[in-house]
Amino acid sequence: MAHDKPISRAVIKRLPRYYRFLGELLKSDIVRISSRELSARMGLTASQIRQDLNCFGGFGQQGYGYNIQELHEEIGHILGLDQRMDAILIGAGNLGRAVANHMDFDNRGFRLSAIFDENPQLIGQRIKNIPIEHTDKMESFCKIHHPMVAILCIPKTATKAISDRLIALGVKGFWNFSHYDLLNQHSGIIVENVHMSDSLMTLSYEIKELLKEES
Amino acid sequence: MAHDKPISRAVIKRLPRYYRFLGELLKSDIVRISSRELSARMGLTASQIRQDLNCFGGFGQQGYGYNIQELHEEIGHILGLDQRMDAILIGAGNLGRAVANHMDFDNRGFRLSAIFDENPQLIGQRIKNIPIEHTDKMESFCKIHHPMVAILCIPKTATKAISDRLIALGVKGFWNFSHYDLLNQHSGIIVENVHMSDSLMTLSYEIKELLKEES
Repeated sequence: MAHDKPISRAVIKRLPRYYRFLGELLKSDIVRISSRELSARMGLTASQIRQDLNCFGGFGQQGYGYNIQELHEEIGHILGLDQRMDAILIGAGNLGRAVANHMDFDNRGFRLSAIFDENPQLIGQRIKNIPIEHTDKMESFCKIHHPMVAILCIPKTATKAISDRLIALGVKGFWNFSHYDLLNQHSGIIVENVHMSDSLMTLSYEIKELLKEES
Repeated sequence: MAHDKPISRAVIKRLPRYYRFLGELLKSDIVRISSRELSARMGLTASQIRQDLNCFGGFGQQGYGYNIQELHEEIGHILGLDQRMDAILIGAGNLGRAVANHMDFDNRGFRLSAIFDENPQLIGQRIKNIPIEHTDKMESFCKIHHPMVAILCIPKTATKAISDRLIALGVKGFWNFSHYDLLNQHSGIIVENVHMSDSLMTLSYEIKELLKEES
């Protein structure tokens, strides 16, 4: 499917959600879906969905709806989920372990290829059969394997030193769970921040508003 | 500070970020900041920032910038971070532990008051001095303490049954780390989803685009 026109940032931000919902539908053996049904499930308007999916060419056919498998594959392709980019995890504490264990890297465009930590007690333990190595070994690993992406599950105070080293070693992208503001310090890199506390603060606001309405 | 006009959803979504940045500035003992300086740090335009902060009344003074402490406090108050709402954590695996250990609930509007899991091996262990209890105890706990919020760090397959029980017990808000779509199943509740895999897919897309530009 041709889609050479640049896709807007807002559409891109919605693609992972489409991908998830379509994946669920596939699992339930549904073959086609109308924009109206999809919109009801996703909480978007049908016209928003038609507009978004039109960016990628002729998926919807008036009166026939979308072929779910085709659309799922195409969105996966646009997102680059069929890549297998080497990613390394720095930080094997609770959060790092949770990320390594829960995330389905293979179906998200990545291969988790090494795990580093500086806690001697963790070195040699395995997560998903990958041995935890000391951060001292990062340089030698990166010089051979050239991972493009690093997942940072380390304290904020450690992030500057580690990210400086990784950028010097050619890492281009960070999945950043620390609250250190990487983009302010470096340019030409990609950073996807997971700010869990922002999400918690939003919840606080929404609950406060709900209680206000109810009182 | 008076702010009785409803604040738009887009502004609300940016408030946690303002709050974080202002908190950093406070730590560095900076007292005032201009919208231009703040915009450079946050990667927003100065006019966006002025517009956003105008929603809350007279913080900026032409030529004097913003009083950081005042603004930080006011945004915290709007977000409800000075509440102390009881929250309970369901699921004490790696992810649940990471959430319990890393999140500063006390300064985010919540008090983590109980932790539940169904794995007998975990019962009685403590996280942040809170004993892990069996999910069988959820009912008796909620009938006494009436927690408003539940944090779900459980597998998707377990989420329907657990959330049905919690909603019947009066829980109004969920911080949901599972991929189960709570809002589709219930109305009148608040759900803040943390979809880590959406973030990973976005990273995949951005790296793919970066490599395309560089090649």
